[in-house]
Amino acid sequence: MPQAYDAPLAQIRTAIDQAATSTGLLKLAGYAESLGDVADSVLENAARFAREVLSPLNPVGDRTPSRCTPDGVVTPPGFAAAYERFRADGWTSLNVPTEHGGLGLPTLVAVASGEMWAGANMSFAMCPELAVGAIEAMTSHASPRLREEYLPRIVSGEWTAAMSLTEPQSGSDLSTVRTRAEADGERWRLFGRKIYITWGDHDFTDNIVHFVLARTPDAPEGLRGISLFLVPKKWPSGNGTFEANDIRAISLEHKMGIRASPTCAMVLGEHGGARGWLVGTRHEGLACMFTMMNHMRLGVGIHSLGIAERSLQLARIHAHDRVQGRNTHGAQRPIIEHTDVRRMLLTMKALTQSARYLLYLAAATLDVSRSAPDEATRTEAASRLGLLTPIVKAWISDVAVEVSSLGVQIHGGTGYVDDSEISQLYRDARIGPIFEGTNYIQAQDLLGRKVLRDSGRALSSLLDEAQRAAEQLPADHAGLAALRSGVIDGCARLRKSTAVLQQQSATDPELIGAVAHHFLQWLGVLIGGWQWSIAARNTASQEILDTAVFYGAHVLPRGYLHEAVIAQGSAPITGAALSSI
Amino acid sequence: MPQAYDAPLAQIRTAIDQAATSTGLLKLAGYAESLGDVADSVLENAARFAREVLSPLNPVGDRTPSRCTPDGVVTPPGFAAAYERFRADGWTSLNVPTEHGGLGLPTLVAVASGEMWAGANMSFAMCPELAVGAIEAMTSHASPRLREEYLPRIVSGEWTAAMSLTEPQSGSDLSTVRTRAEADGERWRLFGRKIYITWGDHDFTDNIVHFVLARTPDAPEGLRGISLFLVPKKWPSGNGTFEANDIRAISLEHKMGIRASPTCAMVLGEHGGARGWLVGTRHEGLACMFTMMNHMRLGVGIHSLGIAERSLQLARIHAHDRVQGRNTHGAQRPIIEHTDVRRMLLTMKALTQSARYLLYLAAATLDVSRSAPDEATRTEAASRLGLLTPIVKAWISDVAVEVSSLGVQIHGGTGYVDDSEISQLYRDARIGPIFEGTNYIQAQDLLGRKVLRDSGRALSSLLDEAQRAAEQLPADHAGLAALRSGVIDGCARLRKSTAVLQQQSATDPELIGAVAHHFLQWLGVLIGGWQWSIAARNTASQEILDTAVFYGAHVLPRGYLHEAVIAQGSAPITGAALSSI
Repeated sequence: MPQAYDAPLAQIRTAIDQAATSTGLLKLAGYAESLGDVADSVLENAARFAREVLSPLNPVGDRTPSRCTPDGVVTPPGFAAAYERFRADGWTSLNVPTEHGGLGLPTLVAVASGEMWAGANMSFAMCPELAVGAIEAMTSHASPRLREEYLPRIVSGEWTAAMSLTEPQSGSDLSTVRTRAEADGERWRLFGRKIYITWGDHDFTDNIVHFVLARTPDAPEGLRGISLFLVPKKWPSGNGTFEANDIRAISLEHKMGIRASPTCAMVLGEHGGARGWLVGTRHEGLACMFTMMNHMRLGVGIHSLGIAERSLQLARIHAHDRVQGRNTHGAQRPIIEHTDVRRMLLTMKALTQSARYLLYLAAATLDVSRSAPDEATRTEAASRLGLLTPIVKAWISDVAVEVSSLGVQIHGGTGYVDDSEISQLYRDARIGPIFEGTNYIQAQDLLGRKVLRDSGRALSSLLDEAQRAAEQLPADHAGLAALRSGVIDGCARLRKSTAVLQQQSATDPELIGAVAHHFLQWLGVLIGGWQWSIAARNTASQEILDTAVFYGAHVLPRGYLHEAVIAQGSAPITGAALSSI
Repeated sequence: MPQAYDAPLAQIRTAIDQAATSTGLLKLAGYAESLGDVADSVLENAARFAREVLSPLNPVGDRTPSRCTPDGVVTPPGFAAAYERFRADGWTSLNVPTEHGGLGLPTLVAVASGEMWAGANMSFAMCPELAVGAIEAMTSHASPRLREEYLPRIVSGEWTAAMSLTEPQSGSDLSTVRTRAEADGERWRLFGRKIYITWGDHDFTDNIVHFVLARTPDAPEGLRGISLFLVPKKWPSGNGTFEANDIRAISLEHKMGIRASPTCAMVLGEHGGARGWLVGTRHEGLACMFTMMNHMRLGVGIHSLGIAERSLQLARIHAHDRVQGRNTHGAQRPIIEHTDVRRMLLTMKALTQSARYLLYLAAATLDVSRSAPDEATRTEAASRLGLLTPIVKAWISDVAVEVSSLGVQIHGGTGYVDDSEISQLYRDARIGPIFEGTNYIQAQDLLGRKVLRDSGRALSSLLDEAQRAAEQLPADHAGLAALRSGVIDGCARLRKSTAVLQQQSATDPELIGAVAHHFLQWLGVLIGGWQWSIAARNTASQEILDTAVFYGAHVLPRGYLHEAVIAQGSAPITGAALSSI
């Protein structure tokens, strides 16, 4: 009998407290309560839902993926019933403001819950996460009338949401979107094809609200001509009745992982056009969509963290159970006693908890950016969040790939067979670095827009904090010495590298692209060191101390590699002839 | 229409020449010919076989895996016919000595051919590789009578071979093997269960020769009580007739990858015992099996290199074909023009060719260890080969995982769907670090047995060579400066680290296990630098120069990470409480 997902509530609590304290969120009105007993109760219930409802369905979804039928997409056995419970329990609206019908809890609590659901069943968890992103986009950009009609039903989970961006010729570069929207009175009619639409169709709910990027006839070329439309699967025809809209899923991708999650090819306008409403300003659809996409970038962090945590759980169980080899007294021993297995487990654990610290820090920062009473604090938090978001998306998704791969390795041959959940996690994890903007796009966003265009201000304030945290570690603790000096030294080195990049990028247009990957990885590793410095300073827990020591000794030195590569500039790449590649 | 595997004959030729020259193999009698025109002709034909026969079957095998029926294992459509052609063309005996009925070609040529077959179809290529290992084990350990009866048919490919080591309780630790062998006159009867038997049953040939580890009744406990038996699927009952032996496949694993390759659970002795012959000396079966296993460790290198090369091919094609984004003049551009895509491709290329240099170096060293006229040279080559084998197995299999993952990333969403071959390669690659001795076992073997127990002699001679090669690079070539100084400096640092480990390991029994992984990775990276130093010095090729420059700038700095972790010793792992993990 496979072991169900077991939420790491202690680690989650540590990360919540750390994030809420270090960002100042805890001092804002109401948060001491909502992050205290209320949060504990919510998280325990979310953990139970993950363990009892979602976790048993995870291998089911892998073995019997969602499938496309003439009547629409059919999800794996048990999934629709699980969604019904999820919705009925009120899980869809945790951090939606109360004025929009939500529970008004901190994003931090929603993110922690999301981590558990994703760890138990990533395919499932992706569906409600889309709704959260859609709610944010609607509250920011949609007209009162649209909000009135659609928002309550998305908030309650009666309807779900989907994001329709990609077309066959238009992936990372959305400027080439061809789906067209023609005016039809107040409304619009859309025609086109979309691919890779996550949860674009399913049997969870009667209706699905699609957010579709398209071009109006008068649209200029390129990114500035794209508008965002709301296109429901079922069109409200008045008096509470609905009729089919002209949008449908025509096929599903057969994927390496996240197989329960239907990835749809959609067609709009086979019969006169899919009816829809404009969201936000015409031709400025990308800005509206970015609200949703930014949330989904945090979403990738949430899901990837879940995968990493679950991989760690399964590897730990296997390492305790599997007996192989003997100790020096000739007694058989579980493989966790093998030094390299401990090394792998500690790597998994250190990376997973680092990812958690980082993600929760971003979530708490988001809460501050909305709830702080003074605008300066809100602005600063928004800027910090902008810096953290691409790192959350890219670094955590890479961590999930690495951690699940280590999980497979610890399992040995049993990790390579399809009925082991760790094999599923390894396959599920691999989508993270690809979707919602490839990790390269994140890295460019970080280095180009969030660091250099900002003249390093947001970065500098983050490094100041990181350095202070490391300096507050005891200087005489042998085990923590590598962490302490690694963070202090790393901050200084990263500052220096950034200054050089700032200068060189003025004359070398290829530089950002050439080093962005290593820059993001380095900063991700360093943020981990910062967070472990805070954790180690504040703790009496042997477990936290041991992991912090390990992180300083085994993970933080990755910075040397990234620094050395960045120092080489763009020449090793741009100097290579295209014919050499 | 998917593009067929396209053998990189130019890169292969470069690597053959480099290995044959640097090891002195080229000067040994007969090798100038067999590595010259003869090799070219063989390799061109092997390449054609890979492209025309094996490559089209690769996705077929992934979609319709081998399956277990009451009449035995049925391989995917087309596989048995391909094997028949493979055998008829004489591909099974390339480097088998002519006195055993083979073609007597250098191992170097066989390895190059094997790389191509694996690149085109890893599942298929694993089958004949097992025969090569079996032939080596038989020529070294089997009695003349067994050799006479079985060897010609394995050499000709009329029968295939399989290695039966693992049992449910006995994986990396073979001391717990329980399959028992009871004397029956001159012969033996075997009873037990084996799992994870690669190509343990199939429909390629009438007979399969199993090499089975088992215990005789008088066997002492542990590794020293294990004997090796030859157990044919069909027992020769005289006069050229055969009857079923008491061994059969009862099920297949459903695996993440290499799905065409049947991974069998076998049962022996359901009806009175599987008849078999002892191979080599009783209770010394492990030594015999190690001959086969050592070959299979090179085999993992061969297969992993093939996967890496094929991943590179597919990623390169995709990067040239896929248009996304615009250049500074607003023109659409293939994604290969994006700097980070070039970074990923160059990383793939640099790692793949490094793996090729390393593998071919090992193969040439093997040839020298057999063909050199003087014993001292043979012994030294054998010692060098012993050092290289675990690195070939572990480093190259890790490279294949990394390179295929980069290949998925370059493909974006299309790399995540099941009908993309790159998705298959990513899944196929993941077995490499697990089977034929996990990469941890390789790392321990390297650091514990091949380096420290040898007092660093074999390592030191390798580092001497590496350093000399780097010193011969021009000191005034700006692009190669990082490679040159990186190798020279890296050799000095690795020597220093090794000396410290030699000293500390005397009193710290956990040290080897704690740092072995990083030691192997570091040495692997440094050997790559050595090989690129030779390549860059000898070449007029822009392509080789560009890749060497990139390796020095982007890959070689990984050594800093490994050095820093090793410097932390065992404490960060052994100091962590088990309860903290």
